[in-house]
Amino acid sequence: MISPLAPDQFPTLPPVGGVRIGTFAAGLRYGGRPDVLVAEVPDGTTMGAVFTTTKCPSAPVDWCKRLVQEQVTPRALVCNAGNANAFTGAAGVRTIEATVTTVAELLTVDPTSVLVASTGVIGEAVDDAALSAAINAVQMQASSSESWTAAANAIRTTDTFAKGSAQSIAMTGATIVGIAKGSGMIAPNMATMLSFIFTDAAVTVEDLQDATAAAAAHSFNRITVDSDTSTSDSVVVLATGASGVSPDLSDFADALNSVMLDLAHQIVRDGEGATKFIEVQVTGAETEAAAEAIARSIADSPLVKTALAAEDANWGRIVMAVGKSGEAADRDALRIRIGSELVAADGVVHPDYSEARATEHLRQPNVMIAVDVGVGDGAAAVWTCDLTHGYIDINAGYRS
Amino acid sequence: MISPLAPDQFPTLPPVGGVRIGTFAAGLRYGGRPDVLVAEVPDGTTMGAVFTTTKCPSAPVDWCKRLVQEQVTPRALVCNAGNANAFTGAAGVRTIEATVTTVAELLTVDPTSVLVASTGVIGEAVDDAALSAAINAVQMQASSSESWTAAANAIRTTDTFAKGSAQSIAMTGATIVGIAKGSGMIAPNMATMLSFIFTDAAVTVEDLQDATAAAAAHSFNRITVDSDTSTSDSVVVLATGASGVSPDLSDFADALNSVMLDLAHQIVRDGEGATKFIEVQVTGAETEAAAEAIARSIADSPLVKTALAAEDANWGRIVMAVGKSGEAADRDALRIRIGSELVAADGVVHPDYSEARATEHLRQPNVMIAVDVGVGDGAAAVWTCDLTHGYIDINAGYRS
Repeated sequence: MISPLAPDQFPTLPPVGGVRIGTFAAGLRYGGRPDVLVAEVPDGTTMGAVFTTTKCPSAPVDWCKRLVQEQVTPRALVCNAGNANAFTGAAGVRTIEATVTTVAELLTVDPTSVLVASTGVIGEAVDDAALSAAINAVQMQASSSESWTAAANAIRTTDTFAKGSAQSIAMTGATIVGIAKGSGMIAPNMATMLSFIFTDAAVTVEDLQDATAAAAAHSFNRITVDSDTSTSDSVVVLATGASGVSPDLSDFADALNSVMLDLAHQIVRDGEGATKFIEVQVTGAETEAAAEAIARSIADSPLVKTALAAEDANWGRIVMAVGKSGEAADRDALRIRIGSELVAADGVVHPDYSEARATEHLRQPNVMIAVDVGVGDGAAAVWTCDLTHGYIDINAGYRS
Repeated sequence: MISPLAPDQFPTLPPVGGVRIGTFAAGLRYGGRPDVLVAEVPDGTTMGAVFTTTKCPSAPVDWCKRLVQEQVTPRALVCNAGNANAFTGAAGVRTIEATVTTVAELLTVDPTSVLVASTGVIGEAVDDAALSAAINAVQMQASSSESWTAAANAIRTTDTFAKGSAQSIAMTGATIVGIAKGSGMIAPNMATMLSFIFTDAAVTVEDLQDATAAAAAHSFNRITVDSDTSTSDSVVVLATGASGVSPDLSDFADALNSVMLDLAHQIVRDGEGATKFIEVQVTGAETEAAAEAIARSIADSPLVKTALAAEDANWGRIVMAVGKSGEAADRDALRIRIGSELVAADGVVHPDYSEARATEHLRQPNVMIAVDVGVGDGAAAVWTCDLTHGYIDINAGYRS
């Protein structure tokens, strides 16, 4: 069943100069559909990346972090869906070696230029032979609307729809295309949110890393489905430079932010059991970080999320979540809005507050909660979804 | 419906010298049953207390914190169920004044010696007239098995059973009796976990505060139902000294710990929708605080809690939760047990691991998860319950 919050259709994504794409079905977990993606990028490509902060990273995350640290020039990226290659010990390292060797032979590149991402079950060894056979069977082709669609589908696990986004960089012919997967911060045994973003702009490694980290901080790091964090989360941005254009850095950052935010919102819209897309805006905090912590406390609260699932304007739970964040807040100056309805001001319910109007807003699929905590100028937004029986159904079911 | 994890019956609690108890029905929210508790203690009583760390405390919490700070000698405690008197602004302060004045006149004590606790809906003004009328109608009597039972029932909101515990202090005639309420860290609109504990031992204010804080840190602060924190959580320990006994402090601490831990476990057993009582033991962490943070990360994880609801030995989610805690852990030395079954060791699944045996353990109502993170000597336990459709039913229902 496709999420009720899904976009009408997968977008038509433009080619990105220098990027070649191939997909194939390895059958690691999903029969009958492609589950392996190989992307090739030209020599001279630069890379920016951010990874999960978990203390128990998967073997692919360990591998990619090393490549980033050693500032290798990336030439390829391989991703498999169905097995996260996490908590697999020495076998997991052997899988990485077999995988990058196979890709390197296929594309005639150096094995240490091959990025790896895996998503799926934790704690089971990967079937290396099946994965290598699938990689060898891949037919590479220039990136195009069709191959992007295939790529976005190949990295899905429990995602109910494929996720893609594109943006042209202002006043250049260059473009940015991204795909992502994720449905729950960690889907049932299907660890990971992954996003791969490609641009034909020319950007230095340092600038690309800065732009990637900044954009991820305000997009993928500002969404939450169930407050859980995967062993495998990875965001990789590859800049081929094939357009010959070195864009203005702030124009590039704007376009990259836009692609990441669109993909991040799509992940929330595919949140497990989600029926509401919820934006939590916090203003008046001591700092931006404090505002983010308060917004996250609201967005992660099971009591807030179940109330919103029920379209119940239960604003006492919002007060509770502000209070538990631990960040400075002036209880007696607190202002709370649900949609455009002012619920509370100056630490008490507003005299003109109408629960009927607030409930009317909560009946929409897109919900806005705005809180001003009255102590400073810090502001931040976090996006989440509601907590429903659907979440329990998906996550309390036996592994299939 | 009573929680399937409830004890067979409410315990027979002994009298505590010097403590008098009265209950009455104010009808603030619940018709036809007592919802107001008044407890009277003799002059010379000492007090220890801990309160919610929320930044948005209720009016009663503000009031009690002030009394503790000013080191008043407590003479009475009044608690109402059904309205938390939280986020009520100036009206909430007037409610406190009216309440303590009424209790002071009833018992001929100073108004500033009257502790107040309230639990229930947030953001609605209390009906002061109804509350004062109920207080005036209370018939005080010496504490006894019957009056303790009435007291434990009068402070319930959505609790499915009353919670009480008693312990005698080793080698003294003195005793400790406690009652508590809580069902979810914050029940639906029914903010609060509350616990009131009485002893006829003589303990100085300083020693009592130290013992209270230490015992709460290892009991009420080590349980979690939904990771939410109320505006009103309060634990108050009153020592009347009526036994004439000044116990050995470590014997007193043992008895107090025992009472608080029993009450804390009862709160988890009444967790909203709970079908499993879960102990999470973490060892091998850098410090006790780190062990607690890791245990809490596991115990708060919706993915772990839904898996346990399904009796699914989905240990990959435990790895995920260890990783996301942010505390030091050696992935490649990690050991995980479900009950007595060794699931993983040295960072991979154990060769003798039997999912059938692990599942057998998870079919029991009392579940044990043990994790050694392999970096130090820090150890801690946290208790929680599973996350079920029952939780969603209770919390996504309209306020009644």
